[in-house]
Amino acid sequence: MSTVKCVLIICDGLGDRPIEELGGRTPLEAANKPNLDHLASVGINGMMHPIGPGITPGSDTSHLSIFGYDPYAYYTGRGPFEVLGMGLPLGYEDIAFRGNFATVEEKDGDLVVSDRRAGRRLDEGDELARSLDGMELDSHPDVEVGIEHSVEHRCAVTLKGPQLSHKVTDTDPHTPGQPLLSCQPISEDKAAQRTAEIVNLLTSKSHAILSAHEANKRRKQRGLPLANAILLRGAGVRPRLPSLREKYGLRAACIAGAALYAGVAVSVGMDLLRVKGSTGTVEVDTLAVGRAAVEALADYDFVFVHIKGADNAGHDGDWEMKMRMVKKIDGMIGAFRDSLDLESTCLAVTADHSTPCEVGEHTGDPVPIVIAGPGVRTDDIEEFGERSCVKGGLSVIRGLDLMPLLMNLSGRTEKFGS
Amino acid sequence: MSTVKCVLIICDGLGDRPIEELGGRTPLEAANKPNLDHLASVGINGMMHPIGPGITPGSDTSHLSIFGYDPYAYYTGRGPFEVLGMGLPLGYEDIAFRGNFATVEEKDGDLVVSDRRAGRRLDEGDELARSLDGMELDSHPDVEVGIEHSVEHRCAVTLKGPQLSHKVTDTDPHTPGQPLLSCQPISEDKAAQRTAEIVNLLTSKSHAILSAHEANKRRKQRGLPLANAILLRGAGVRPRLPSLREKYGLRAACIAGAALYAGVAVSVGMDLLRVKGSTGTVEVDTLAVGRAAVEALADYDFVFVHIKGADNAGHDGDWEMKMRMVKKIDGMIGAFRDSLDLESTCLAVTADHSTPCEVGEHTGDPVPIVIAGPGVRTDDIEEFGERSCVKGGLSVIRGLDLMPLLMNLSGRTEKFGS
Repeated sequence: MSTVKCVLIICDGLGDRPIEELGGRTPLEAANKPNLDHLASVGINGMMHPIGPGITPGSDTSHLSIFGYDPYAYYTGRGPFEVLGMGLPLGYEDIAFRGNFATVEEKDGDLVVSDRRAGRRLDEGDELARSLDGMELDSHPDVEVGIEHSVEHRCAVTLKGPQLSHKVTDTDPHTPGQPLLSCQPISEDKAAQRTAEIVNLLTSKSHAILSAHEANKRRKQRGLPLANAILLRGAGVRPRLPSLREKYGLRAACIAGAALYAGVAVSVGMDLLRVKGSTGTVEVDTLAVGRAAVEALADYDFVFVHIKGADNAGHDGDWEMKMRMVKKIDGMIGAFRDSLDLESTCLAVTADHSTPCEVGEHTGDPVPIVIAGPGVRTDDIEEFGERSCVKGGLSVIRGLDLMPLLMNLSGRTEKFGS
Repeated sequence: MSTVKCVLIICDGLGDRPIEELGGRTPLEAANKPNLDHLASVGINGMMHPIGPGITPGSDTSHLSIFGYDPYAYYTGRGPFEVLGMGLPLGYEDIAFRGNFATVEEKDGDLVVSDRRAGRRLDEGDELARSLDGMELDSHPDVEVGIEHSVEHRCAVTLKGPQLSHKVTDTDPHTPGQPLLSCQPISEDKAAQRTAEIVNLLTSKSHAILSAHEANKRRKQRGLPLANAILLRGAGVRPRLPSLREKYGLRAACIAGAALYAGVAVSVGMDLLRVKGSTGTVEVDTLAVGRAAVEALADYDFVFVHIKGADNAGHDGDWEMKMRMVKKIDGMIGAFRDSLDLESTCLAVTADHSTPCEVGEHTGDPVPIVIAGPGVRTDDIEEFGERSCVKGGLSVIRGLDLMPLLMNLSGRTEKFGS
């Protein structure tokens, strides 16, 4: 069988719920999106539960599931994906955390978090991270601490060494005004207890180093909040995932606007493509991203494109912004009509979860999906939306079904049995 | 609840994809099939993933799944089903292979396969098989070799004895012009290594016996390709399956046109009914098969009918032939309108997988299904096809769901809980 190349577009948080101001329509239903609707009319449509009916996905677990990896079997925490998405090396035994530089104040012996993001803008992030990276924890000389600044207040923290475990709690209280938390083991094994001790040492030593750091003296002079602590969350280990190449013989690439999605993609063996304009915000240049995806098909069998903005709009409860994001995505799909040959390429568009504007958070509502390309059993759906697509030929699928369905259409499934 | 008898028709490889020459319709959609459409209009319809979404089924795994047995749990290889379908005895410890008589030539120490089927027509198959059956492998006197000719170039090969394993590779290179392969263990256990040794001995001894056989001298004189080797594939053991009688109290029978399907049926406890005209080709006499199925209902609760031709047409890429097969199947369904009382009998029609003409191989596309009979919640579908049925009352099911659904309608399910 000849094989077909494939582009998978995931529009983060695209799914929504009916909004009264939109006459009971969702932002996707209400938006002007002639190209997405055209795609629906030439494709096969349906609804997808990214993880399962009613299950509210995280961005990491939903992407794992959509790429064909059961998150209940493989997921330990978000940290490793953030680290991998920053392009950093990470062994399968290392423990990885997401970190924030934060502002803390001493009160009655506690370190109370007054700003979880140290003002968010942190031009000194690199030099602060360098002052912590490789710190020695005297009582645990066998553990190597890695701290790397990413963007704004964010950093990645890794622990390498023997007898470590990801089964420890966050030190980030997640709510400002609360004390920085002591890290606790959530398993009775010794590795978890040892790791919690190490995290607590690392936290107090970081506080000492950062408090005395020249950069913070400068920030104080300029009236900026001090970046005098790091808050850790999402401890995890890198899951051992069979790559898409091993599973399907795919050469796969990823264009993503943020480290997390890139990290999940790396963990399943995709190459990361850096594209100018792929910002991970509503400012994303979807046309540049679309062009890069088409160009990548020269070298790759499978190109995953992640577009973040609709999720940001949903979190902000801004349905007008979400509609504008739909329009930007629609522009990219329109450009594909000229540049992607659906006689020889398979194009799928869906979301990783719903982020309804009236909720402002992820929900477990299913998301619409359309697949167009050669051999597709088209249906009579003519609109891409949360309610129109349920009557389509795909009916209702789960995230774990998507890759097998795409690989079937791509001529890349091996027969099971004979 | 009174029980209802049931006829299940599986049309092999019936599912297809849109074909341009048919105006974007599938052969099933384009064919004249008034009786199948009538069945759809009086039944409940849906789509079925024989194994799972996007999974390309083999014929063996799909039938297991449709009969209610998870192939991931039970399937080891095709060999045992071929052996059982030939009506041969097979113990649960025996190893079974599918075999071909083939033509090989010695080249540089290899046996190169010049014709995998020794010309396909092999009138001497019985006597050749008899010369190999029961051969003694001097170094393994505890192993009994069984070789039985079936039709054309095909044979079944069994090994009986202690410490044998099905975890060995094929000796059939599957491509002509390639050397006959050495059998290799695919497990580290000793039984697999021993079995591979035995297969290799059996192969070289067969070559010696066949090369010297009178029948091959006659074939040589007549200019026919020699049947001077056997190629083995699909090693497996008979799975221990709870029978349909044990699961549902069913007396079940099978009418199938080829050994494989009959073998799966035997392995789940069906009786094999031999029907003249059930040929396993597009020449099948569907009316004779249909009459036999109705007659069998006098003695059986459940009759499984397998009709092969549509799959052959799909493998040959011949959509006109596939449409003619649909017409023949439709004729059988038409005859049922006179002979099967749907007030007291449940009739289900579906396929074991899609074999799209434009692909020429099995694919993972779902297949349509219709169930008619007493108590069925009819829907408004009026056409039996790959796209019409998805809007039916069954929505989308998996192969493993079918028997529970049929047994429910037949009044044969036991309450789970109280």
